[in-house]
Amino acid sequence: MSITILGHKLKNLPWEEKPKDCLEPVWRYSKNPLITRETVRGANSIFNSAVVAYKDEFRGVFRIDTKELVMELHSGRSEDGLSWNIDQERIEFNAEDPEIGRFVYGYDPRVVFLEDRYYVTWCNGYHGPTIGVAYTYDFERFYQLENAFLPFNRNGVLFPRKIKGKFAMLSRPSDNGHTPFGDIFYSESPDMIHWGCHRHVMSPTAGWQSTKVGAGPIPIETSEGWLLIYHGVWTSCNGFVYSAGVALLDLERPWKVIKRSKHYILNPRMPYENIGDVPNVTFPCASLQDPETGRIAIYYGAADTVTALAFTTSEILYHFLQEHSY
Amino acid sequence: MSITILGHKLKNLPWEEKPKDCLEPVWRYSKNPLITRETVRGANSIFNSAVVAYKDEFRGVFRIDTKELVMELHSGRSEDGLSWNIDQERIEFNAEDPEIGRFVYGYDPRVVFLEDRYYVTWCNGYHGPTIGVAYTYDFERFYQLENAFLPFNRNGVLFPRKIKGKFAMLSRPSDNGHTPFGDIFYSESPDMIHWGCHRHVMSPTAGWQSTKVGAGPIPIETSEGWLLIYHGVWTSCNGFVYSAGVALLDLERPWKVIKRSKHYILNPRMPYENIGDVPNVTFPCASLQDPETGRIAIYYGAADTVTALAFTTSEILYHFLQEHSY
Amino acid sequence: MSITILGHKLKNLPWEEKPKDCLEPVWRYSKNPLITRETVRGANSIFNSAVVAYKDEFRGVFRIDTKELVMELHSGRSEDGLSWNIDQERIEFNAEDPEIGRFVYGYDPRVVFLEDRYYVTWCNGYHGPTIGVAYTYDFERFYQLENAFLPFNRNGVLFPRKIKGKFAMLSRPSDNGHTPFGDIFYSESPDMIHWGCHRHVMSPTAGWQSTKVGAGPIPIETSEGWLLIYHGVWTSCNGFVYSAGVALLDLERPWKVIKRSKHYILNPRMPYENIGDVPNVTFPCASLQDPETGRIAIYYGAADTVTALAFTTSEILYHFLQEHSY
Amino acid sequence: MSITILGHKLKNLPWEEKPKDCLEPVWRYSKNPLITRETVRGANSIFNSAVVAYKDEFRGVFRIDTKELVMELHSGRSEDGLSWNIDQERIEFNAEDPEIGRFVYGYDPRVVFLEDRYYVTWCNGYHGPTIGVAYTYDFERFYQLENAFLPFNRNGVLFPRKIKGKFAMLSRPSDNGHTPFGDIFYSESPDMIHWGCHRHVMSPTAGWQSTKVGAGPIPIETSEGWLLIYHGVWTSCNGFVYSAGVALLDLERPWKVIKRSKHYILNPRMPYENIGDVPNVTFPCASLQDPETGRIAIYYGAADTVTALAFTTSEILYHFLQEHSY
Amino acid sequence: MSITILGHKLKNLPWEEKPKDCLEPVWRYSKNPLITRETVRGANSIFNSAVVAYKDEFRGVFRIDTKELVMELHSGRSEDGLSWNIDQERIEFNAEDPEIGRFVYGYDPRVVFLEDRYYVTWCNGYHGPTIGVAYTYDFERFYQLENAFLPFNRNGVLFPRKIKGKFAMLSRPSDNGHTPFGDIFYSESPDMIHWGCHRHVMSPTAGWQSTKVGAGPIPIETSEGWLLIYHGVWTSCNGFVYSAGVALLDLERPWKVIKRSKHYILNPRMPYENIGDVPNVTFPCASLQDPETGRIAIYYGAADTVTALAFTTSEILYHFLQEHSY
Amino acid sequence: MSITILGHKLKNLPWEEKPKDCLEPVWRYSKNPLITRETVRGANSIFNSAVVAYKDEFRGVFRIDTKELVMELHSGRSEDGLSWNIDQERIEFNAEDPEIGRFVYGYDPRVVFLEDRYYVTWCNGYHGPTIGVAYTYDFERFYQLENAFLPFNRNGVLFPRKIKGKFAMLSRPSDNGHTPFGDIFYSESPDMIHWGCHRHVMSPTAGWQSTKVGAGPIPIETSEGWLLIYHGVWTSCNGFVYSAGVALLDLERPWKVIKRSKHYILNPRMPYENIGDVPNVTFPCASLQDPETGRIAIYYGAADTVTALAFTTSEILYHFLQEHSY
Repeated sequence: MSITILGHKLKNLPWEEKPKDCLEPVWRYSKNPLITRETVRGANSIFNSAVVAYKDEFRGVFRIDTKELVMELHSGRSEDGLSWNIDQERIEFNAEDPEIGRFVYGYDPRVVFLEDRYYVTWCNGYHGPTIGVAYTYDFERFYQLENAFLPFNRNGVLFPRKIKGKFAMLSRPSDNGHTPFGDIFYSESPDMIHWGCHRHVMSPTAGWQSTKVGAGPIPIETSEGWLLIYHGVWTSCNGFVYSAGVALLDLERPWKVIKRSKHYILNPRMPYENIGDVPNVTFPCASLQDPETGRIAIYYGAADTVTALAFTTSEILYHFLQEHSY
Repeated sequence: MSITILGHKLKNLPWEEKPKDCLEPVWRYSKNPLITRETVRGANSIFNSAVVAYKDEFRGVFRIDTKELVMELHSGRSEDGLSWNIDQERIEFNAEDPEIGRFVYGYDPRVVFLEDRYYVTWCNGYHGPTIGVAYTYDFERFYQLENAFLPFNRNGVLFPRKIKGKFAMLSRPSDNGHTPFGDIFYSESPDMIHWGCHRHVMSPTAGWQSTKVGAGPIPIETSEGWLLIYHGVWTSCNGFVYSAGVALLDLERPWKVIKRSKHYILNPRMPYENIGDVPNVTFPCASLQDPETGRIAIYYGAADTVTALAFTTSEILYHFLQEHSY
Repeated sequence: MSITILGHKLKNLPWEEKPKDCLEPVWRYSKNPLITRETVRGANSIFNSAVVAYKDEFRGVFRIDTKELVMELHSGRSEDGLSWNIDQERIEFNAEDPEIGRFVYGYDPRVVFLEDRYYVTWCNGYHGPTIGVAYTYDFERFYQLENAFLPFNRNGVLFPRKIKGKFAMLSRPSDNGHTPFGDIFYSESPDMIHWGCHRHVMSPTAGWQSTKVGAGPIPIETSEGWLLIYHGVWTSCNGFVYSAGVALLDLERPWKVIKRSKHYILNPRMPYENIGDVPNVTFPCASLQDPETGRIAIYYGAADTVTALAFTTSEILYHFLQEHSY
Repeated sequence: MSITILGHKLKNLPWEEKPKDCLEPVWRYSKNPLITRETVRGANSIFNSAVVAYKDEFRGVFRIDTKELVMELHSGRSEDGLSWNIDQERIEFNAEDPEIGRFVYGYDPRVVFLEDRYYVTWCNGYHGPTIGVAYTYDFERFYQLENAFLPFNRNGVLFPRKIKGKFAMLSRPSDNGHTPFGDIFYSESPDMIHWGCHRHVMSPTAGWQSTKVGAGPIPIETSEGWLLIYHGVWTSCNGFVYSAGVALLDLERPWKVIKRSKHYILNPRMPYENIGDVPNVTFPCASLQDPETGRIAIYYGAADTVTALAFTTSEILYHFLQEHSY
Repeated sequence: MSITILGHKLKNLPWEEKPKDCLEPVWRYSKNPLITRETVRGANSIFNSAVVAYKDEFRGVFRIDTKELVMELHSGRSEDGLSWNIDQERIEFNAEDPEIGRFVYGYDPRVVFLEDRYYVTWCNGYHGPTIGVAYTYDFERFYQLENAFLPFNRNGVLFPRKIKGKFAMLSRPSDNGHTPFGDIFYSESPDMIHWGCHRHVMSPTAGWQSTKVGAGPIPIETSEGWLLIYHGVWTSCNGFVYSAGVALLDLERPWKVIKRSKHYILNPRMPYENIGDVPNVTFPCASLQDPETGRIAIYYGAADTVTALAFTTSEILYHFLQEHSY
Repeated sequence: MSITILGHKLKNLPWEEKPKDCLEPVWRYSKNPLITRETVRGANSIFNSAVVAYKDEFRGVFRIDTKELVMELHSGRSEDGLSWNIDQERIEFNAEDPEIGRFVYGYDPRVVFLEDRYYVTWCNGYHGPTIGVAYTYDFERFYQLENAFLPFNRNGVLFPRKIKGKFAMLSRPSDNGHTPFGDIFYSESPDMIHWGCHRHVMSPTAGWQSTKVGAGPIPIETSEGWLLIYHGVWTSCNGFVYSAGVALLDLERPWKVIKRSKHYILNPRMPYENIGDVPNVTFPCASLQDPETGRIAIYYGAADTVTALAFTTSEILYHFLQEHSY
């Protein structure tokens, strides 16, 4: 019973060893929160952001809510994945059709290296939230494509390679408010513009994932399937609580769920997760992983206010899935 | 100031002349309701259905709610468009992937002849309502394609020809209940499977169309643009009221609205429209038109219970749009 | 495949033969509505009422909403079950404890002959709706017992005999408003005061019975099980629609459902059912049946405004259940 | 026990004698509905309108919803109070400040002769519904004053004379939707511009008046107090039902309720009241009365679609209040 | 003006003296929170739990939400009432009827010694929340009886002795969500199976107890009546806030409220009460008391996350009730 | 580009210099929270309170929620504006009409010196929340006038001088719950009793002020217009978040907005702002300012639990408005 992450070695992955007395599958970075509002002048908060390996360094696209509370995407760079230099100005996307390029709001980005470039997907305002798509080679210039779907949609997450010759994306159809429902679906595209062959992947079940579920970081390709870290929402009498779980999806038919965690792997329990603009949120948007060691660093938004970091390994998640799954 | 319907002559269009004292742009068939539950054994109601010219006759796909109140699609045929013979059994779609072909519910169909076959679109149950797509050559065997969009969507209406080389569809993104919002969007597809290049067409405005709007019959190609009959919803303290209006869309960029009616052209005021399973609904789903005379016959659901028929001409609608438009 | 109603012959059951062209399992009385507001001075409406055989005549307890729109119970008598003489004043229940006897409101009564007397159950206002219980020997003097359950509850329906030595009741737990949910439960009592051994009987399913279900008339004992006519509610965009179905329950363990109709047997389609204080309601509360002929007369409220009558037979319902059941 | 209407004789009051078998305090005009959409070209509906005696004739301000479903006020005239000639165009109010005069919507007018002119009050759109005020001498030119109150308010009804030297108005504070609450308040003004000394008059109670209450026609001054016909709303599972009741208010301190009807005097039960744009609405907005005979003609909107007429007398209402009051 | 707790001396009651500067009637344990998630492997949280004296030690039934967020009951033991050893596995109840014994969820337990055994009541999942009942002699084996009531019910609390020969229970009828209403009722049973003679005890009033109220620990028998510590809920714009109050109920007719606190005795103000899975919750479920000294130790859940402890005396509560009561 | 505060010098304004590294326009008092529940025996919380200069000292009216959670107004005094002595008993207003003087609840006071006395306005319970008005000369005796408006209204804030000869007030019409909308309006009065000439000032826009806005402290008269600090509310999935912004209103037509901040100037980010009875609230109700230095001290409620203090200057706010405005 073992698992191997597929892909290239990532030598300078941010990492801390698991504390001795920790019984959890995921442990937090000792210097959390990693990124706070002070990092960018004019920021109300920095959270739900995506980082990616880039040459020997790291790059990222960050959700920044301004002091107007407008949701923006900013580009950032880091040598070690811990200390980040983030642009003061939001990304200005180049788009052929100005109707598509017109900025309304952008949030909860994901970034993936796919074939020859980095793709960014995010929740893009176009007569309601939908999935914006853009690419960049250098995190300086970004080229915006057509929105993948009709509104209303959130949490669009690309797979890191084509599947059976087509681009593939997970997403969560929603409505235009604080959506109290949400399933994960799978869609395909021959050209990153037109999407179809939609398949249902998974629904809310119970407990921490009883209200809605949505894909988190880019799925991690492993010997056993796609390792998907996802968020689940529970509705208390005082609002939503966002936790995180893990699932294993079939490699070639990713809408087939092999395993899915019954228990959460991460939930709000630290002050920076319990307190902030939206209390009780842990929301993973990105991970870095190293095939050689199986180490995984998870970047997650906390309390819709700050960005935090946590660690695990593919082995730990895999064993967790054996024990605590549906 | 004149308008011409494009396309082939339709010689046996159902028709009644406008009553002398009628001041309205649309007048009802004197023998309404046209189709009632008695037509099909086991039917609770027959409404929101689509008819189309077929050789020298007519064919249709009908929404039938059973006495279980399950929404089904049935095939039907008629020589004169008035007297209909409707199948007792629902359409069994042939689909390559059984997950797509599995029947949950189907309602509010539209039918269009496009290139070499008849396409049916409808609100299809797949983990929520979305747009089902199928085709038939003979209204006997129907072949189901992939759902066009992710849930949640309703009122998917194809254009009767490719636009700039792509299939084109209007639809209304929704949620999974009695959606209290709804805009019309335009989407394109190279292959009737993958859809993209989504464009916003129109939003609710005020009065009878203040809650939501959705495309009705297949857009009618005219010399001045696509003539679109659509429904609009107003929310009274006792629920939704469905009326109908008309718009003119740009021929090559149909998401550009040239004119849009400020006044309704049809609203619930007859007993069979005010009374039934859902009081106060007039919901057009199909039209037949004759380019030579400009005559248009509109089939519409009434009170979510029966199918009714009304008449107008392209000239009348065009002049109405000059006088009562935004 | 046959069914026999158990019990005593009822010679003067109100009856009309099934119309020739009628394909439905239940047909309406040709002189519906049977009882209207004119019957009782000061009545706004008379509906959802219970009748029962009494000696060679009939007696009943009637829901009357006054012109204040207060819900009251009135006693009534009839020789033929068709023409009713109803008291102008509401029933004044005698109760040992004045806190229980205090009148707040009473509605939707059921009446059953059980052992040596007639029991009345109804929706009784006691800090919210719950199930009131009383008995009478003569429909003149009524003796109120303890409420069967804690609020919130509606549609309490007694079985016409003890089951395994205990009184038995169906009911539908609810909340204190226009409850948008509702299952039928079964409860037992050794003394008609203390109730326990609660068992779940059935939940809403789909279509016409997708929002809530509740027991209607007193279950009819047959050779095949308890024949239960019940109501089901569907939520349209304009509110609730109340239809009726039928089920067969196990004789000794009545919470075990043997058959349950997928199709409704009665739904709102006549003007007096579609129009009134609450449009689109057919709500059966009582039946009279004759073991010898299998004839069943169903009394039902229509549009929360009038009382109507319909007919069927045990054979027809039984065959209907074979064909249109879950 | 007797009552006298104060004021000038009204000789040509529209009138029909009470039908012999009628037990109700108010009886309907035999030719109802009085005014329908055909009266004004472009009207969707004409209802909730106000009429007033004018010289030897009658004048009125009418609520007309256009086919856009925009709510407008139109001026009208009649010789007999039955046959009405209504302007095709809405009233254009003259206002000093264009911000006040800007038309958004206007509905549910009341008209009163006060001192030397006719005042019109209505629900006026100014950043939400509030009470618009205007006056006219001739029903040709109307002069708009300041809105009486801040939003959100509806059903502003002036008293026909100053009380203790101040203008006096009843109104019903509300919110900006289908307000599910509503009490009647009393306010005073020295100049018809500034309003204060607000007093609570009455709240919803139970039954037909359990959701909200609002003043109807101009209060009728009598020897026993102000006779106020008002509407009350009950919330069924299918929406609001509007009935009418009557109250007697203290002459000099009109916020003191002397009597208030427990029973309604008018409720929806005719097809034109049960069916229409908003089913189940009877909504009185005006009355004509003759001191000599005590006759009262009540104009009321029915089903938010048509205007209807009903009759009563001050004696009948007064005796009704003795018998059916809180 | 004095009060005596009835019952047996409890010598090793957990206790801390009231801090000098404390003006409150209840003071917190200095080492709060008493029990945290680390106590039980796999626990997300431990709160709203019941403890009871057992021989010279203590036993308890604990609400544990797992990392799946399933609500479970676990058995625990302690020598001093402070340091607890709690089972890793949930209690498996023995039930005669497997339909009753089937585990769905269990939460908010109460435990009472009654006659010869310990009874446990809790919120038990059976087609909605209702009151589960079980007994144990040793906190090792538990025997489940019938659910006391139909759904929907929560906070079932037994009295520690029969009253007039019958078992007696307080409970709070609810609905199936985050119930925004809730009164306390009293019910009786001759056999712990069948329940009846339901009486209303108290409703929400204002302020901290304006949304709902529910019984907390087992009522404490005193010379002056039953001392009932209960919770009350206030709805802020950010959700529910749970505080605690105290009432005195008549000894023989416990639905008669002698005194009821207008002020809360405990409300959320410590970090472990303000922050957690559900912020702003203090929810007492159990108390230990010593007749000799009048000392009372209150166990309460905090923020739906941890278990905390607080202290008071019967004298203090009694005087508080004299000063701050309705 | 400069601004001058008009009015008299305030020599002993509470003040702390801006911290060196602070980039915000407003900085918090280092000893926040300024006033906590311990200040007044029996207080649950002290927040949303108004202070004002009085001779060489300070006086104030404080919102105190009791341990019943009843909202009261208390009078207080201070020499330095930092250390406050607050009455244990609530203000008993003297009112001519006992119906107006009857205490239901009072909250969120504002105090202003106007002509010859101090006026207090607050949210006053009179059949719903509305604006209470009173005056005092000495903060010992308070004289209550008529409520300014009909319910439902909150945040009534007087201008510190008559404008064009009339008293002037800002307010926010609301409903009777946790109002999810709210605009600021302007009203005038010749006599502080009758109010009219209502004008719309500003609506919610986006981000932190997307749900509702309301006036905060008394507007500060400056050379450039009225400087208005106001609150704005954003609705997260976990409830309301209250931030503060600033606007500049025209001196003689204060409903004309010259500038309005797009960014907030203060938002919840300190523990005493994020945690408490209502998490995430910063709610300014009063300011003290010194024309000579331009210094402004802002008193604000935090988390509906404590009173806090912050500082800024007129120059800083003015420059902020130049840079971050609509």
